[in-house]
Amino acid sequence: MSPSSKLLAGVELGGTKCVCILGTGPEDVRALERLPTGDREETLRQIESVLDRWRSQHGSLRALGIASFGPVDLRPGSPTYGFITSTTKPGWRNTDVALRLARKLGVPVGFDTDVNGAAMAEGRWGAAQGLDDFAYVTVGTGIGVGSIVRGRPIFGMNHTELGHIRVVRKAGDKFAGVCSFHGDCIEGLASGPAVEARAGQPASQLPPDHPAWDYVAHGLGQLMHTMVLTTAPQRIFLGGGVMSAQTHLFERIRDELRRSLNHYVEGTELEGGLAHYIVPPGLGTMSGPLGALALAADAEQQAMHQPPVATAASR
Amino acid sequence: MSPSSKLLAGVELGGTKCVCILGTGPEDVRALERLPTGDREETLRQIESVLDRWRSQHGSLRALGIASFGPVDLRPGSPTYGFITSTTKPGWRNTDVALRLARKLGVPVGFDTDVNGAAMAEGRWGAAQGLDDFAYVTVGTGIGVGSIVRGRPIFGMNHTELGHIRVVRKAGDKFAGVCSFHGDCIEGLASGPAVEARAGQPASQLPPDHPAWDYVAHGLGQLMHTMVLTTAPQRIFLGGGVMSAQTHLFERIRDELRRSLNHYVEGTELEGGLAHYIVPPGLGTMSGPLGALALAADAEQQAMHQPPVATAASR
Repeated sequence: MSPSSKLLAGVELGGTKCVCILGTGPEDVRALERLPTGDREETLRQIESVLDRWRSQHGSLRALGIASFGPVDLRPGSPTYGFITSTTKPGWRNTDVALRLARKLGVPVGFDTDVNGAAMAEGRWGAAQGLDDFAYVTVGTGIGVGSIVRGRPIFGMNHTELGHIRVVRKAGDKFAGVCSFHGDCIEGLASGPAVEARAGQPASQLPPDHPAWDYVAHGLGQLMHTMVLTTAPQRIFLGGGVMSAQTHLFERIRDELRRSLNHYVEGTELEGGLAHYIVPPGLGTMSGPLGALALAADAEQQAMHQPPVATAASR
Repeated sequence: MSPSSKLLAGVELGGTKCVCILGTGPEDVRALERLPTGDREETLRQIESVLDRWRSQHGSLRALGIASFGPVDLRPGSPTYGFITSTTKPGWRNTDVALRLARKLGVPVGFDTDVNGAAMAEGRWGAAQGLDDFAYVTVGTGIGVGSIVRGRPIFGMNHTELGHIRVVRKAGDKFAGVCSFHGDCIEGLASGPAVEARAGQPASQLPPDHPAWDYVAHGLGQLMHTMVLTTAPQRIFLGGGVMSAQTHLFERIRDELRRSLNHYVEGTELEGGLAHYIVPPGLGTMSGPLGALALAADAEQQAMHQPPVATAASR
């Protein structure tokens, strides 16, 4: 097997399920396996066994990408680089993910948040091709945002965590919120579990005219307002389980954003009813798994310019 | 006069006053002139006459930087590039600033928001030297934030405008806010005019134990919370008239931020009581005027890599 035929592997570590993916891009997915995200040791061993099997079936890999729920430690040189850190997910606090898999595979490993990965996939293969500044939002088990500035995810003292900003509540919304850190941050108010706690039934099954959606759309509109003013994305992609099941939310969120900005920000992007500004991801529900593959592709490109030993521990 | 002895000029266009500055940096300010920001035509003519006088006294300039209150249009190719656009300031809507001065002077012109300029000055000469990701906040006539990502201001569909995000109010805060676009956005709640409207006397003269500061500190703490989660700056500089007159606010804002984040974000930057994270600007009250000079220096460097005609209209 020639080097050019070798494949990339990706692991999307999600709050509910993990997706392992093998291939070179959206047109060339060779294998895809889903696992429930359970006990961390068992889950990581299952992922390792999928990767082992793929290596024996398809030969050695070019690179691995890991797109993980967060928060994760991406700080170069940190003793907990590559760890999932202060997550709200039980049993997963302080879990080494990136270095463990890097040691096992011995190939360049790209590691970032699930939403940064999804955003990079949209930029590389999806609906953000040609854009330098955009954002991918997931509304599902949690709420997360990957903000791309000049073609790369924002990274300061660590990665961003917009799902935990606090937003102004719609008048009359007395729901306490479900975030164990912040109560009524936007994830606490409008994620899938928040909707279920509000309405008493799963978000995916809630009818579009349920009053809970008024509060959720208002909250997500406030998240968009903050995003427009903090990073001024050229386009915002809304994905995740809640958005793909409840597509009526798109127009409601556009309305809330328009009302909230009140013509303060001018931009051709904001004209035309925002129908081209607040949009579904081009890769659909594959943004997440392909995000992991995009991180693998980035890691491979970076490794060409760096000594191999540094690859897994740098961005 | 040799080319190397030629000087940079800057104009800080503020909501209350304009500052014209001549020199090469903080250690070499040759001239500084303040003008009230009044009628736009009169104000721009006064600025032009200062620049004319400096050219006749000091010889031709190397470049000009303009750091302006906003919003401004920074979109390359826009028919209103270089304009102040939808400002809340009476009489200044849709005002050409950058191209007017560029045509007059015939040198490279850098144009950006006042806060982006101040942030770039902190990075070039001040307390942000060596940092790639940081933010400069002004709390004065308005509230504005310059967010630097990988060494440059964020610029997507346009510049950012964090002063107009909406924040969660402290319980009991019923003040309607003074922003003509958004009412109780953070500028509407915590800028100098907002404090004066709350308390009935100018913000600079209000005693530190006045109850209005509780609401202001809470609101600014929420702005910090949002900044930490949206751009994860390595450090945040708080400047502007309100902050420099009311230094007790620093500790209050740190307390509010710590409480609000609730240990969700981990970073060495956030340890030690935030005393090294939420700090005054290194250039003090000169951040603003030196911001204009920093934009001039950047414009000159860019011009070396571009055809001269494109300089004034590109970033």
